[in-house]
Amino acid sequence: MTAETSDRAADPAPAVSGVGGAVDERDAAMSELLGIRSSIDNIDAALIHLLAERFKFTQQVGRLKARHGLPPSDPDREKRQIARLRALAEDAHLDPAFAEKWFNFVVAEVIQHHEELAGNGGSDEL
Amino acid sequence: MTAETSDRAADPAPAVSGVGGAVDERDAAMSELLGIRSSIDNIDAALIHLLAERFKFTQQVGRLKARHGLPPSDPDREKRQIARLRALAEDAHLDPAFAEKWFNFVVAEVIQHHEELAGNGGSDEL
Repeated sequence: MTAETSDRAADPAPAVSGVGGAVDERDAAMSELLGIRSSIDNIDAALIHLLAERFKFTQQVGRLKARHGLPPSDPDREKRQIARLRALAEDAHLDPAFAEKWFNFVVAEVIQHHEELAGNGGSDEL
Repeated sequence: MTAETSDRAADPAPAVSGVGGAVDERDAAMSELLGIRSSIDNIDAALIHLLAERFKFTQQVGRLKARHGLPPSDPDREKRQIARLRALAEDAHLDPAFAEKWFNFVVAEVIQHHEELAGNGGSDEL
């Protein structure tokens, strides 16, 4: 029982100032923080799984191109991909420069990964 | 009308060898390639939108921590995040080293972005 306890036990806890209130507020903030972290963790799991699928598709394209002697790269496609991702980022209120940098990072990793696996750098789909 | 045209117009095109068949096969491969590229584009759009949501959450955490004087960083959380993402990557057949490198890239960008916006580097959630 604290000084703030009243007979109206069913009412929500009153907003109080002072030390007890500050601790309550901090607890509420920590609880909110844990909830947001849980959302970040869910998003990260989704991102990892989508990246795994993306890799599967780019590997499939690499095999297809090798089998049919298709041109290994298509610079115009990369330009179109970047322009499209920048536009999507803008619509989603994500910094377009970050989106482009992020795409280039993933592409560089895809190329490096393929080179390590295949011993060649000539048939990478981005 | 080509040499391969028959009266059985409703039948699928027969598999033929020789120059015409090679061209058909290449056309089929190109068509398959365009289909896979379309899937890659869909995945990239999903990735961009999830990254946009992730940024919104990390910015929300930054504001929450500033408002309630919560500790700016939590090194243990970052370690747990990396271990979890590596395990998820392994289950999804994605190179865990790539997953960790990718996470570090996103985190570095988040920190840089926050520093640019807020003029401080002390309240970043990863």
